[in-house]
Amino acid sequence: MTELSIDINCDLGEGFGAWRIADDEALLDVVTSANVACGFHAGDPRTMHRVCRHAVERGVRIGAHVGYRDLAGFGRRYIDIAPADLESDVLYQLGALDAMARSAGGEVSYIKPHGALYDAVSRHEGQAAAVVDAVCLFEPGLPVLGRPGSVFLNLAEQAGLPTVAEAFADRAYRADGGLVSRREPGATLSDPDAVARQSVRLVLDNEVKAADGAVVRVEAGSLCVHSDTPGALELARVVRSALTDAGVTLRSFS
Amino acid sequence: MTELSIDINCDLGEGFGAWRIADDEALLDVVTSANVACGFHAGDPRTMHRVCRHAVERGVRIGAHVGYRDLAGFGRRYIDIAPADLESDVLYQLGALDAMARSAGGEVSYIKPHGALYDAVSRHEGQAAAVVDAVCLFEPGLPVLGRPGSVFLNLAEQAGLPTVAEAFADRAYRADGGLVSRREPGATLSDPDAVARQSVRLVLDNEVKAADGAVVRVEAGSLCVHSDTPGALELARVVRSALTDAGVTLRSFS
Amino acid sequence: MTELSIDINCDLGEGFGAWRIADDEALLDVVTSANVACGFHAGDPRTMHRVCRHAVERGVRIGAHVGYRDLAGFGRRYIDIAPADLESDVLYQLGALDAMARSAGGEVSYIKPHGALYDAVSRHEGQAAAVVDAVCLFEPGLPVLGRPGSVFLNLAEQAGLPTVAEAFADRAYRADGGLVSRREPGATLSDPDAVARQSVRLVLDNEVKAADGAVVRVEAGSLCVHSDTPGALELARVVRSALTDAGVTLRSFS
Amino acid sequence: MTELSIDINCDLGEGFGAWRIADDEALLDVVTSANVACGFHAGDPRTMHRVCRHAVERGVRIGAHVGYRDLAGFGRRYIDIAPADLESDVLYQLGALDAMARSAGGEVSYIKPHGALYDAVSRHEGQAAAVVDAVCLFEPGLPVLGRPGSVFLNLAEQAGLPTVAEAFADRAYRADGGLVSRREPGATLSDPDAVARQSVRLVLDNEVKAADGAVVRVEAGSLCVHSDTPGALELARVVRSALTDAGVTLRSFS
Repeated sequence: MTELSIDINCDLGEGFGAWRIADDEALLDVVTSANVACGFHAGDPRTMHRVCRHAVERGVRIGAHVGYRDLAGFGRRYIDIAPADLESDVLYQLGALDAMARSAGGEVSYIKPHGALYDAVSRHEGQAAAVVDAVCLFEPGLPVLGRPGSVFLNLAEQAGLPTVAEAFADRAYRADGGLVSRREPGATLSDPDAVARQSVRLVLDNEVKAADGAVVRVEAGSLCVHSDTPGALELARVVRSALTDAGVTLRSFS
Repeated sequence: MTELSIDINCDLGEGFGAWRIADDEALLDVVTSANVACGFHAGDPRTMHRVCRHAVERGVRIGAHVGYRDLAGFGRRYIDIAPADLESDVLYQLGALDAMARSAGGEVSYIKPHGALYDAVSRHEGQAAAVVDAVCLFEPGLPVLGRPGSVFLNLAEQAGLPTVAEAFADRAYRADGGLVSRREPGATLSDPDAVARQSVRLVLDNEVKAADGAVVRVEAGSLCVHSDTPGALELARVVRSALTDAGVTLRSFS
Repeated sequence: MTELSIDINCDLGEGFGAWRIADDEALLDVVTSANVACGFHAGDPRTMHRVCRHAVERGVRIGAHVGYRDLAGFGRRYIDIAPADLESDVLYQLGALDAMARSAGGEVSYIKPHGALYDAVSRHEGQAAAVVDAVCLFEPGLPVLGRPGSVFLNLAEQAGLPTVAEAFADRAYRADGGLVSRREPGATLSDPDAVARQSVRLVLDNEVKAADGAVVRVEAGSLCVHSDTPGALELARVVRSALTDAGVTLRSFS
Repeated sequence: MTELSIDINCDLGEGFGAWRIADDEALLDVVTSANVACGFHAGDPRTMHRVCRHAVERGVRIGAHVGYRDLAGFGRRYIDIAPADLESDVLYQLGALDAMARSAGGEVSYIKPHGALYDAVSRHEGQAAAVVDAVCLFEPGLPVLGRPGSVFLNLAEQAGLPTVAEAFADRAYRADGGLVSRREPGATLSDPDAVARQSVRLVLDNEVKAADGAVVRVEAGSLCVHSDTPGALELARVVRSALTDAGVTLRSFS
């Protein structure tokens, strides 16, 4: 009998100076992988340092949540940055976070682009290649976490990087396996039971029920829960409980 | 017969985006240690990346020129930052530059605070200790470069870090071994012959003629030349030639 | 029989992009003067714009809450900026907020420095004069709000600007009329009854009971309530109710 | 006999803190309209203040050269900012510059978007409308300067704003009246004689010889000269002399 396990990842350390977004410490008790903001869209150095210490204490993996340089837009606005500049920006963020992680007894274990960069590298060849190149320069064996079927994961795989596709516990899916756009109603699930059901089905059966009722196959090595919505912490706990109750072991992918 | 050698250090990579300060590449042909800006007072990631590549190509050592977070003030304004915040800010900058240096085949070989931070850690116990703590977290054997007799070098020594005191090729000295303040006339030497003479005397005799004529003992492991003044490149070349002509080998301290 | 009135001022608009600090709209129902962040320590343009619209709708006066350029430090760290630079920075912030206020049908009605700048101009001649000079350049009749007895208010008065001294509803006073430092225990009052009592006594009797029991005379044209502490909104409402119940009319000073 | 006159505009004040791009003062002796950076892509407040003073002294008109918030990219990278955010960002910049201009005895006399924003509003309805809306909020009669035939100028005209189309002294034109892309060879003219000839023909005959030899009609109320290229100052002087020699009066459009 094989043990079934899954990783839960979440965006953390997204405050800046006096500002806070999420209850980082409480969420670190729930997830197994922490996508830590690296200072460009959020994440002042002291916050990064603290999140890394708390993550290491709990055995949570540290991932570099790299973003566009855009504090005012929280990294949620596409920027038409030249790939050569983006490569350097990503390498800079990777190194900065790694110093924080190492000083806390950990290390950067994976990378996951944030916000508009996450969306851009799903289809923008030049920017996706720039992020992949930065990872290869930093650490040629570093896993990348991203959207299944994205240009980013494809290029990372071609470059020999380990890739991990993620699924979303609280997002509605389309019949083609994509996500319902946030501009449409019903894009996010807020009912805890529905989120729990979707999470368990994703992990046990590798499938999800799309918004139109179709059943879609989704293979994922990690389950993403959100941190920046009201009730995010409660929903993350629901996902963890439901998975544990279903006999799934929660464990980082890396 | 022992060979006499000295290191020449210089601030480089101090542009930001479209802006430039110095002719980085030409100066890299002159110096043996490059104090590379790390993004807080200057130094966008691509510039950092490029300077690191060029430094490695020439065998020039890369130092982390860490500063206050103050692009508008070029790091030249004292900021009363809490030591715990400063420690994280310095660690962040060290990690970011190290990723750049390593991807270019080098590494961060030393640290030298910039501008107002350099001045602050000369006497401010809390901030000096914060920088030392950051270095110890990053790499407990990393050499620190600074002002002889400063609180910073003293604390670094107590922490077991290798310390290197620097002298200034083109600054006027006071009889007590300190520098003539930039607010006073004659603070900087612009006559190439005077700069050359002072440089050679500093290295050969470990002494300097102060502004009032007194001869002052100065022990230094590195000679600082400036990059941000008109004629800086020419003056740096004069220093290098004068030392070479005097039989001194130019070699990094580390 | 003369009517007794007082102004209540509060820091608002201190979010930045995705980040929020206070419940701006609810507080605008309580105060009569809004110190609106101008983008340097907090306050993105859209937030500024929104707060100005809401303030104008409620008849709340708009003040320029100018600060050091320091998002990472929330303007709470002293910066040794040259007075000529500070003058321009303050003028810039005044103009930016004024465009927001005017487009909402209002205007900038006063200025109050924020955080570390507020503290600095209490005693730093050069920086205080720079802020006063900026105000005179912007609008020679603009009232300034600040700490009674501060260098800032004195210089403003000498420059012919209307000055308004403020008292604090929820801060403990020393026998000399100064505030108990935030580093000491009991610096802030959190008991609603105590805050209400202090507020009413300040307005009705122009006096306050200091931490050591002494009764201190305090003449103030405005009462400051905080927005950035837990329970700030509730405390502000308590102050407003207590004053209204005591027959005091709440009205802007300007 | 009617007098023929033209305006010459140029980007100025594009330094930031210690960094400089152009020789602002020398260029202010050549042009009649100064596009002054407002702090988002370049332009620290003290530089803005100084450029405004020098412009007023010389009778040069001050225009708001508004840009994306992107110091690292010098405003040259498209940002997919929400129109409502862009509107506030532009209004903020307009107000900030106006305070500088007024304190110097002038005022903001027109607006011209910078860099990637200039390009975006040529065709992006949402962003163009946002800039127009900001101008209407700020000052409903403020002239806008931009590319002939752009969405921006069309929307501005519909909104009742005075519009001024500009031509380029040193850019190669296509047969359809557009500019040869900077990615193609020959996009910019560097030969002073060619620049002088194109400038005079643009003003006297309202036409230009395109790269393929076709003669294209171009109606322009202002001639743009560059400030950020080597030899920019010299070229600007050549344009001014050639126009003056041809009997053209140099005068601001507004």
